[in-house]
Amino acid sequence: MAESLEEFKRFRERMNERILSSGNLQIQRFFNLDTRAYEPGALSSKVKELLGLVGSLVLRCDDCVTYHLLRCVDEKVSDEEFFEAFNVALVVGGSITIPHLRRAVKRLEEARGFRERKRNRKRAAARSSSPRH
Amino acid sequence: MAESLEEFKRFRERMNERILSSGNLQIQRFFNLDTRAYEPGALSSKVKELLGLVGSLVLRCDDCVTYHLLRCVDEKVSDEEFFEAFNVALVVGGSITIPHLRRAVKRLEEARGFRERKRNRKRAAARSSSPRH
Amino acid sequence: MAESLEEFKRFRERMNERILSSGNLQIQRFFNLDTRAYEPGALSSKVKELLGLVGSLVLRCDDCVTYHLLRCVDEKVSDEEFFEAFNVALVVGGSITIPHLRRAVKRLEEARGFRERKRNRKRAAARSSSPRH
Amino acid sequence: MAESLEEFKRFRERMNERILSSGNLQIQRFFNLDTRAYEPGALSSKVKELLGLVGSLVLRCDDCVTYHLLRCVDEKVSDEEFFEAFNVALVVGGSITIPHLRRAVKRLEEARGFRERKRNRKRAAARSSSPRH
Amino acid sequence: MAESLEEFKRFRERMNERILSSGNLQIQRFFNLDTRAYEPGALSSKVKELLGLVGSLVLRCDDCVTYHLLRCVDEKVSDEEFFEAFNVALVVGGSITIPHLRRAVKRLEEARGFRERKRNRKRAAARSSSPRH
Amino acid sequence: MAESLEEFKRFRERMNERILSSGNLQIQRFFNLDTRAYEPGALSSKVKELLGLVGSLVLRCDDCVTYHLLRCVDEKVSDEEFFEAFNVALVVGGSITIPHLRRAVKRLEEARGFRERKRNRKRAAARSSSPRH
Repeated sequence: MAESLEEFKRFRERMNERILSSGNLQIQRFFNLDTRAYEPGALSSKVKELLGLVGSLVLRCDDCVTYHLLRCVDEKVSDEEFFEAFNVALVVGGSITIPHLRRAVKRLEEARGFRERKRNRKRAAARSSSPRH
Repeated sequence: MAESLEEFKRFRERMNERILSSGNLQIQRFFNLDTRAYEPGALSSKVKELLGLVGSLVLRCDDCVTYHLLRCVDEKVSDEEFFEAFNVALVVGGSITIPHLRRAVKRLEEARGFRERKRNRKRAAARSSSPRH
Repeated sequence: MAESLEEFKRFRERMNERILSSGNLQIQRFFNLDTRAYEPGALSSKVKELLGLVGSLVLRCDDCVTYHLLRCVDEKVSDEEFFEAFNVALVVGGSITIPHLRRAVKRLEEARGFRERKRNRKRAAARSSSPRH
Repeated sequence: MAESLEEFKRFRERMNERILSSGNLQIQRFFNLDTRAYEPGALSSKVKELLGLVGSLVLRCDDCVTYHLLRCVDEKVSDEEFFEAFNVALVVGGSITIPHLRRAVKRLEEARGFRERKRNRKRAAARSSSPRH
Repeated sequence: MAESLEEFKRFRERMNERILSSGNLQIQRFFNLDTRAYEPGALSSKVKELLGLVGSLVLRCDDCVTYHLLRCVDEKVSDEEFFEAFNVALVVGGSITIPHLRRAVKRLEEARGFRERKRNRKRAAARSSSPRH
Repeated sequence: MAESLEEFKRFRERMNERILSSGNLQIQRFFNLDTRAYEPGALSSKVKELLGLVGSLVLRCDDCVTYHLLRCVDEKVSDEEFFEAFNVALVVGGSITIPHLRRAVKRLEEARGFRERKRNRKRAAARSSSPRH
């Protein structure tokens, strides 16, 4: 996994932009449906993102796994919950999913660190900009 | 879909029995892991069965869909929740999942009727065995 | 293949109706996008239906194959063209597609006979309802 | 599994014939390559048929599983060997392969019975045609 | 996508050569069938390459997508036609194909630039080698 | 293929360790079943690793292919045997497996060189540590 989480995001955003500016209206609508499928309804966003994560793992798409994993982190999925979802994917999809599981765990570590650093930067910024006393 | 829900269950149980009595210990252990993956832990059984349902839909396995659908009915998944999970599977897996979705909806109707009849029979039995006055 | 082409269509229509009347707006929109993807644009409907057919064959979904095959028959795809498209699917997807190819060829024969009979009935109706002299 | 082993074979043979008589030379060549891939070479036919069986199980194609299973029976694969190969497929492909495994075990029972009856008929024929003393 | 189009081609050619020189005659024949499947017949090469492209997208194989995409560029597939084919693949295969779509669009841009540069070099070469007056 | 065989192994080992130390007992058990599926029984380890290799090729998982390929090298699978197994995978799985086949052949070359160097180092070590006369 040569590519960092930052590079993944940049490439993803840049190419999504190109696709959406291609003038194909139906692809735009598909992207819109894709976004809306994970909005809260009868099921919460957290559950829906977990559904997306397991769906992506059993279909073995690393980029989709990374995306839903980051969203799950946003939705406060705990490590224990992640590993139970990983286990469902592993049992359903078999050992062929293991390399994707390894990369998912790597991404999870990166994501935890990433959010951590973001939070720290915000705190530091808040401290430095807040009145000292 | 020539096969009824009853026939599906009978075939499933009979063949599972044969597989488990084959003497291959590792297959037995796999079946055990399969059962345990959906037991409640950090995530509830309901969420785990929904994960199994969406995993089965995107991998397009009708029998697995039927199995998790029945378990979801046991876990009190509402119709609205079902269709939101179906929508996640549809968006992730594409139109190729639609025939499986059609069969899932058919099975859901059968399952709702099936539980209904079971409940009615129980009530009738309860009534007939209860003291008349 | 116990199911006739007529049964396939009836089941498909009935269940699509149930799905569309479930109240899930996003599934309705997906179904709409699915229909529109094959409308003529820069590529003709004929080419798009062939794309759908090959996509369905390599993903090995019999019902999707049947659907696109019927649409291809509507778009006047010749037998020679069908078999060249089947060959692309066979080479891309491998021998695992052969059982689906067998069923596709069966469906093609049914579809050719089906359209033939429909045409004959129309002609017969036209004859019987037309003034005799 | 409504379809008997005999029906499976008849449909398979009839449709293969139609495909091969379609005039598409490349499909004929593919079918030829498919047959030759399992001929003995550095690896025996038995091992190659087991490779075909596990490949078919993890790709979840019932007809391909049935075909290779029958060929494995011809190659004297024992029940213990079958279940070890099934276990590899189950671990690699996950619980999603279980419905196919159930049908494979059913087909194996049918195939064992089928060969048995064939052998018995031959023996009976041999006895009836052989001099009595 | 660390790998450039040039690196992709070099690796592809070098490894194909090794495979073809391995002495396995049947693999050679398969490679030959693979090439011939896209030659013009009842369907044009352009349509067949589009079939290969959509087949590769729904099966989610980046290298196969790149290969057919380059061939489609050779066959003068326009951007509008590409995006309509992408849309069929997206609808059939679902959001799981989106990362592959992103990489396909990236490759398309590279390929357009690549052909452009090649043409420019040829023109420059033609100019420099042509008599000045 | 930017990643060397050494990097592959290091990443694999490090992440497996993290997964196994996550505290999820069921994932540990799955990993254990995965290891045991290839132990000799009625079928030899060599045959089982070939089954794992072909299963991984048709499911198109490069890391799984690399892993089983290395194990096959340990089990003394010859080049001719490898290419016959590759041919079965190619025929079953189609041209979509070709990019994975290319990478498998690359890995095989690396693995042959890798074992060669390891053996040479051992011999050199043996020579230098052995008594001179």
